[in-house]
Amino acid sequence: MPKINPQRLLNDLKHLRTFGATGPGVVRLSLSPVDMDARRWLAGRMSDAGLSATIDGVGTVFGRSRNAGPALLIGSHTDTQPTGGWLDGALGVIYGLEIARALAECEETRHFAVDVASWIDEEGTFSGFLGSRSFVGEDVDEAIRGARNREGVLLGDALKQAGLIDAPCVRLDRARYRAYLEPHIEQGGRLEAHGKSIGVVTTIVGIRELKLRFSGQRNHAGTTPMSIRRDAGAALVAFIARMDEAFRALADADTVWTVGRIELDPGSFSVVPGAAAMHLQFRDASAERLHAMETALAALIRDFNAEGKVSVAITDSEPPEAPVVMDPALQAQLADAAEAIAPGQWERMPSGASHDAQVIAHHIPACMLFVPSIGGVSHDFIEDTAEAHIVLGCEVATRAAAAILRKTSG
Amino acid sequence: MPKINPQRLLNDLKHLRTFGATGPGVVRLSLSPVDMDARRWLAGRMSDAGLSATIDGVGTVFGRSRNAGPALLIGSHTDTQPTGGWLDGALGVIYGLEIARALAECEETRHFAVDVASWIDEEGTFSGFLGSRSFVGEDVDEAIRGARNREGVLLGDALKQAGLIDAPCVRLDRARYRAYLEPHIEQGGRLEAHGKSIGVVTTIVGIRELKLRFSGQRNHAGTTPMSIRRDAGAALVAFIARMDEAFRALADADTVWTVGRIELDPGSFSVVPGAAAMHLQFRDASAERLHAMETALAALIRDFNAEGKVSVAITDSEPPEAPVVMDPALQAQLADAAEAIAPGQWERMPSGASHDAQVIAHHIPACMLFVPSIGGVSHDFIEDTAEAHIVLGCEVATRAAAAILRKTSG
Repeated sequence: MPKINPQRLLNDLKHLRTFGATGPGVVRLSLSPVDMDARRWLAGRMSDAGLSATIDGVGTVFGRSRNAGPALLIGSHTDTQPTGGWLDGALGVIYGLEIARALAECEETRHFAVDVASWIDEEGTFSGFLGSRSFVGEDVDEAIRGARNREGVLLGDALKQAGLIDAPCVRLDRARYRAYLEPHIEQGGRLEAHGKSIGVVTTIVGIRELKLRFSGQRNHAGTTPMSIRRDAGAALVAFIARMDEAFRALADADTVWTVGRIELDPGSFSVVPGAAAMHLQFRDASAERLHAMETALAALIRDFNAEGKVSVAITDSEPPEAPVVMDPALQAQLADAAEAIAPGQWERMPSGASHDAQVIAHHIPACMLFVPSIGGVSHDFIEDTAEAHIVLGCEVATRAAAAILRKTSG
Repeated sequence: MPKINPQRLLNDLKHLRTFGATGPGVVRLSLSPVDMDARRWLAGRMSDAGLSATIDGVGTVFGRSRNAGPALLIGSHTDTQPTGGWLDGALGVIYGLEIARALAECEETRHFAVDVASWIDEEGTFSGFLGSRSFVGEDVDEAIRGARNREGVLLGDALKQAGLIDAPCVRLDRARYRAYLEPHIEQGGRLEAHGKSIGVVTTIVGIRELKLRFSGQRNHAGTTPMSIRRDAGAALVAFIARMDEAFRALADADTVWTVGRIELDPGSFSVVPGAAAMHLQFRDASAERLHAMETALAALIRDFNAEGKVSVAITDSEPPEAPVVMDPALQAQLADAAEAIAPGQWERMPSGASHDAQVIAHHIPACMLFVPSIGGVSHDFIEDTAEAHIVLGCEVATRAAAAILRKTSG
């Protein structure tokens, strides 16, 4: 049975943390100089582990095992949010590296093939999931030509600057892979609240993002009686209350919805808002429930407009992201490994956040494993996970990896 | 009995409209080149009317009658909002000019003294009510040193640019004045809704302006269950609903309250807002009711904080403006004049908007007369009043002016 080296795992995670370290957190935006330094270091560590390592034409670091398949692909991302935590995606990448090393060091599993990836730009500094999308063969040329970071730098120019623009891109070889495994921090507080150490992900939730605009009548806030106002801001507030009620009636414990932004126009003390806008996002693991929420929202909008004082319309919406179910057989193997190493300390759960696994799951069987986030915090400098949980998560993933490959290589 | 010249009145209003004309509206911000052109034209028209006209050290245009007092002071303002209407304060200033002319042309009233003022910066391009505040002797030196317009220009520099900085300031001579009259457009839709032509103002409402801040916990919008969120935006929405209920229980038909601005932090689709802020204004003619609303708000804040999930506090508040009651004897004289000229077509009403009269009323008896605003619109390019109402309002004001001065000069 392969065994990880906890100190080596933690040392690598801590060394990776030094690239872009900012207080307890990390600022390592895709393709920034410090991110490129981290990628070169990671490629070196992959080579040290016996993998054939490259940084591909979009920036993904890919370490390919020299063993023949069927292979297990393990990956996540080492880029961060503008105020990122030190683990986030880094955990899964270094897990992959450590699992490749652990299997290579074990007589029984040394012929197993584990490939490791750090997908570029999961966080969308330029274009979200760029690395995994490129890997599975989606067309990313438009993103390379047109996507810009917050400073206005074109992705193509950043790739030139990083010396990558002419490098070949790593592409999915379906025949090689048995499965994709993405370990990650939970980014929520559920495992901690339940006193659990390991999450086996059932589904990556689907997402709807909409902008709603309310149109009323701008008026003087002193001279316009309440009775004749067509206050778009007040209408927005009333709409949210009705929407909350409708969504609560449809929700289960994991359904979430968020009004992340509200704008009143003109936004002055003395003016009754003539227009108002809100950003609404809702997420659920069930495609049916997402559809029911959309239907409820449409009915609310219809009713609201029928009342006539202030009108409301959806002005913009992101392409819907459907829920992505993790491969049931792989879930079972993660669950078996978790039960063997940490009996009773694991649970199945949806992922409320998006991950590269949702891109790759459309092409090869995929699964995810979570470790607890302290206080449920992520995308923040104070994001952290107990070292015992970091080590335990890698042990479970290693056991599952060996089992997945044993089943097919044995 | 003095008689106005309707065509002269309308011609002067229309000529004033040409300074800063923008479509049907006017952009004539205090001390801008076009505003100074308008002030010089106005001073010329005052001189033509036999008044001793000056533009004073803050920009107020003041036309003093050459007759001895007791005098009636008639005024308003000719500066506009960034998207101003053509009448707004201009109406009251040109009424003053026309009333001075009409009284001078009538044998019976030619010895009456009518002074006319266009107070600078009522709209607060630099510092609201600057002209009337300077006139009554308030210290405006700090405003001259520190107040800036939206372009960042200091008031002092704008006065230098206009060639006014060394001009003397006109000061209130209490012994001269019997009363102050400010005619103005209503800026609301009440007269129109009631089918009336003239409003006799009872009170200029008091105003409270507050900023409230809600503090919760910023979280990932996908991974944070609704049950454990401390969503500052959702709390703000719930707070507004409770506040509306509490204020409705205290309000009369003229009480108004407005949430003019809402900000959620960080304002992104994918982040549960950790903080939220709102701008609240409420107005009422009764000091007691304003106090009751403040007390209700404080109780709501206390209750909200006792629930503990998201805290709320008042972070900023403007100095309260107390309601200002118009002089009852002057109200009666306006009412008599209205009833004589337009029987049954007038009503008493509060002013929901602020006016220079509230500054001057603390020093000499003051009153206001309103004419209807079409559609209740003001501070907008499409602001307008029917010509018949413009003429009628001036006839009523002229009759009242003669009566006020007759009473004391006769």
